[in-house]
Amino acid sequence: MTKADIQLIRSLDDKRARQETRLFVAEGEKLVRDLLASEFRIRKIYCTEMVSTTFSNIETISQKEMERASHLKSATDCLALVEIPRHTLPDRLALRGELVLALDGVQNPGNMGTIVRLADWFGIRHILCSPDCADCWNPKVVQATMGALARVAVHYGDLPSLITSAALPVYGTFLDGDNIYEADLTPEGVIVLGSEGRGISAEIERLVERRLFIPPFSPDTLGSESLNVAIAAAIVCSEFRRR
Amino acid sequence: MTKADIQLIRSLDDKRARQETRLFVAEGEKLVRDLLASEFRIRKIYCTEMVSTTFSNIETISQKEMERASHLKSATDCLALVEIPRHTLPDRLALRGELVLALDGVQNPGNMGTIVRLADWFGIRHILCSPDCADCWNPKVVQATMGALARVAVHYGDLPSLITSAALPVYGTFLDGDNIYEADLTPEGVIVLGSEGRGISAEIERLVERRLFIPPFSPDTLGSESLNVAIAAAIVCSEFRRR
Repeated sequence: MTKADIQLIRSLDDKRARQETRLFVAEGEKLVRDLLASEFRIRKIYCTEMVSTTFSNIETISQKEMERASHLKSATDCLALVEIPRHTLPDRLALRGELVLALDGVQNPGNMGTIVRLADWFGIRHILCSPDCADCWNPKVVQATMGALARVAVHYGDLPSLITSAALPVYGTFLDGDNIYEADLTPEGVIVLGSEGRGISAEIERLVERRLFIPPFSPDTLGSESLNVAIAAAIVCSEFRRR
Repeated sequence: MTKADIQLIRSLDDKRARQETRLFVAEGEKLVRDLLASEFRIRKIYCTEMVSTTFSNIETISQKEMERASHLKSATDCLALVEIPRHTLPDRLALRGELVLALDGVQNPGNMGTIVRLADWFGIRHILCSPDCADCWNPKVVQATMGALARVAVHYGDLPSLITSAALPVYGTFLDGDNIYEADLTPEGVIVLGSEGRGISAEIERLVERRLFIPPFSPDTLGSESLNVAIAAAIVCSEFRRR
């Protein structure tokens, strides 16, 4: 492992470096195996121990080297350099019957990772993101998703166009919406989730056809507090999927 | 503001210092106002601007001093030194009809903060915690709860005794449990949530009377993945409360 290899890996902490190289870092044997089993194109794998795999471009490195390269607090025994995929959103016919998430400025990497992971749990295959959302190829997000990125496609782009091109009923949560526990929900749709600070933007709000509301069960909190965006996503997805 | 004041505030990052002084730090005007309106005993408030309040022990400090004292990346205009309350769990009669959470080794401060916040949303007034759970008086957790700690009592102690003394039906989620969307749920109960790494411990599992399961909706993920503990908590609380 050369100094340049370590520098390249360390540089992928930075979004611009990821955009230039079109590479991201995945760490941990389980995650690397999930990616190997998927359509991701792995450029190189570094391991501290011999690992049985048919993948050829693999290099055994020392624990010290791994610690120097790793983005994690405690380095694991496996690290992969992986190409960032160029997802394209399937056309509207292929999206029929699907539940899709649309993130309007979700900027916290922890929330982004949690949302990708729960989308995977609820069988959601596509997440649409405005360009100001946290980057899902950030090493912290990649780790937080625990392999879900191998199954969920995250699309960045002009959010109004992405939502419109999906051509599904559009749902969003607002304080003046219908109680989600009593509302009619279609099995398919786009669920819009707003940013941590300002909620759903006016531009996206205009695209929302069905306004929903998650009622609090504590009179004290009504109006004064809000739910974390990932928690709200979980409650909404759970309601859509249980029906 | 003396050097000793700043040192005291900065030291409260550390659990031992909090245990010795029985103090924690709360930052931000909204949070401090929530605590002032609650039964918390505030020792001192530092503000960078004059704030209208009937609270007397308040000191105006400079922006520089606030930045030195603050535990946050971007300091706010208000910081309070607050006494850690000595909550006692109400007796079983007073807990009738209540939903209570029991955290068995939830060690991530982010998860702890999110769970306290969603408990508040769902009108849950008591959280029971094993001693190895993240400390809810950690400045990061206090901030993440966004005032919910003013309304939700977090009890640390021997978890089996705490659960037993609540004398409510005990629920927990397991891979072999009943589908939560179809199971009968009582309006009252203790919901046990396991640690991020190992789930619910054997000792606590023996106390669980009703085993529940959150079914994934993606066949790919069945058995291979799990939900983040705060996300699982949100789904379970939502199911209990919507009925």
